Amino acid sequence: MAMAQAMTAEVVPLPRKRPTLDPMLSLTANGMNSVNAVILDRMQSEIPLIPRLAGHLISGGGKRLRPMLTLAGAELVGYQGTRHHKLAAAVEFIHTATLLHDDVVDGSELRRGKAAANIIFGNPATVLVGDFLFSRAFELMTEDGSLRVLKILSHASAVIAEGEVSQLTAQRQIETSEERYLQIIGAKTAALFAAASQISAVVAECGDEQERALEDYGRNLGVAFQLVDDAIDYDSDAAEMGKDRGDDFREGKMTLPVILAYARGSEDERRFWKDAIMGHRSSDADLEHAIELIGRHNALDDTRERARHFAQRAIDAISIFPDSKARQAMAEAAQFAVARGY
Amino acid sequence: MAMAQAMTAEVVPLPRKRPTLDPMLSLTANGMNSVNAVILDRMQSEIPLIPRLAGHLISGGGKRLRPMLTLAGAELVGYQGTRHHKLAAAVEFIHTATLLHDDVVDGSELRRGKAAANIIFGNPATVLVGDFLFSRAFELMTEDGSLRVLKILSHASAVIAEGEVSQLTAQRQIETSEERYLQIIGAKTAALFAAASQISAVVAECGDEQERALEDYGRNLGVAFQLVDDAIDYDSDAAEMGKDRGDDFREGKMTLPVILAYARGSEDERRFWKDAIMGHRSSDADLEHAIELIGRHNALDDTRERARHFAQRAIDAISIFPDSKARQAMAEAAQFAVARGY
Repeated sequence: MAMAQAMTAEVVPLPRKRPTLDPMLSLTANGMNSVNAVILDRMQSEIPLIPRLAGHLISGGGKRLRPMLTLAGAELVGYQGTRHHKLAAAVEFIHTATLLHDDVVDGSELRRGKAAANIIFGNPATVLVGDFLFSRAFELMTEDGSLRVLKILSHASAVIAEGEVSQLTAQRQIETSEERYLQIIGAKTAALFAAASQISAVVAECGDEQERALEDYGRNLGVAFQLVDDAIDYDSDAAEMGKDRGDDFREGKMTLPVILAYARGSEDERRFWKDAIMGHRSSDADLEHAIELIGRHNALDDTRERARHFAQRAIDAISIFPDSKARQAMAEAAQFAVARGY
Repeated sequence: MAMAQAMTAEVVPLPRKRPTLDPMLSLTANGMNSVNAVILDRMQSEIPLIPRLAGHLISGGGKRLRPMLTLAGAELVGYQGTRHHKLAAAVEFIHTATLLHDDVVDGSELRRGKAAANIIFGNPATVLVGDFLFSRAFELMTEDGSLRVLKILSHASAVIAEGEVSQLTAQRQIETSEERYLQIIGAKTAALFAAASQISAVVAECGDEQERALEDYGRNLGVAFQLVDDAIDYDSDAAEMGKDRGDDFREGKMTLPVILAYARGSEDERRFWKDAIMGHRSSDADLEHAIELIGRHNALDDTRERARHFAQRAIDAISIFPDSKARQAMAEAAQFAVARGY
């Protein structure tokens, strides 16, 4: 798709560097070593199955984007301490717990390109180890001792669960609107991005304006990420691995590419979508047809366009901070969120 | 069984009043009204499925024993405030979350005599509403603001999850020892009883000795309760309802009645137990045979005897407090724990 765009342009300029996560990775590399040490240390238990199951997912090559947001935020505001390492680990534990429970909820077979934990260890252990990690997250926060951080992250956790239940009730509901969809991903994904980012300002004891700015950065970035994730599930050119393409389609999940293609479709096409989302058309040929319809109505490009909008809002939110390596890295991370999978 | 005991006694004295939960219920009645109001208020959500699913279990006639322990402890130490109402509600939310997840883990069909939530609402929603209630519990604790309470309850939550995983790995393992079993129920059941009881002393700012005594009371009471629960599952005379008798048997759970009957059994009997716990003998006739073997070796009476031991330790733990209505009610609750189901 990047190729196609380049070819339609009148003048081909020197290729602009594609945005990457590299500046963010360098910015947070030292801190992430400490965070990873906390993660490894605190996922241990006398019950051997717990670190084995948790480790399957935790060492499974996730980007650890959320704890990275906490570290980047701390850099942005010039925080000098180390309290945020434990808190970033708590954020990753909450995220890991929700992934484990998601895999049970969705009956996933793949996660990050490997067999999902529920496939290897079964649903029961996967649910319980999720609970364990969730509890550990609150133990870590309590050790830190900031009631404000506890408030932010316990509230975010409740909102995430609400978002997941909301998504569940929207499943196989063709009439789900873009507004409803944005509410769902705002809760199930963006709330933790927002909280992860915000707590860096809390630890650094910045003012309200800074705290709000970091929260807004995280929330908008989270929405952009989720939109692109949802696009990738229908993108035959997508290079990003780790998920079975078409998972959302087969599960009858209402995501923006489908919402747009359905809204813009003919009567015939709408009938197809209704059947497909109800689960009556889930073959590979049906998936190909769905991808074709989504392409016909520019629904993938427009989903990415929506993501670009939120990424830009994320970048603008942190414009109140003076220019710095941290701010540049965070801005490029937002651009990367949109460009992923091309 | 109570009959049988009375008949073997030489002299039949005037029937001693059977211990009940009534003094505990009167002691905590006012406080429980406040706790129930908090529970009802804080299980609400804009996502209608959440209060519907949570309400199914929460209004389903549970005894709310754990929050009652917090209230009784507060009475015992003469606490005059109301902070413990919110915290008792948090305890009940944690308990409810673990019940919801347990039902998914065990594939339960009945809970408290009604269809289990997972049967009515499905596993996905049941897992997620559990997560929601768990998060709400931490929101309530954070609002209260005691880091010590947060520490006690986040640690207890992690220990519960460890206990559940440990029970899962002991499932269908005939060689599970009584020691291992006591560790498991100490974690999966008694940890929350202990925490619920202990936090009353924390809120009242008692000394360490009082706090420890209340923790010990709760822990021993929890062990006694679980032992009797496990006995009732094999007790054909048990009056207690709400659970399918034989659930543990069919799930291959190693509980004390089985551990004792296996240890005391003949070679033939041990072969039966091995097959049964492996899941190769799970018919109604097999269950009857299991009950017969358990009876032959006094394994039910001895399980209750073990429970009596822990109940007595609970009673002795609070003997450091001056005699009071609260202490008497708590002591009778411990006796009730042992006498249940007769």
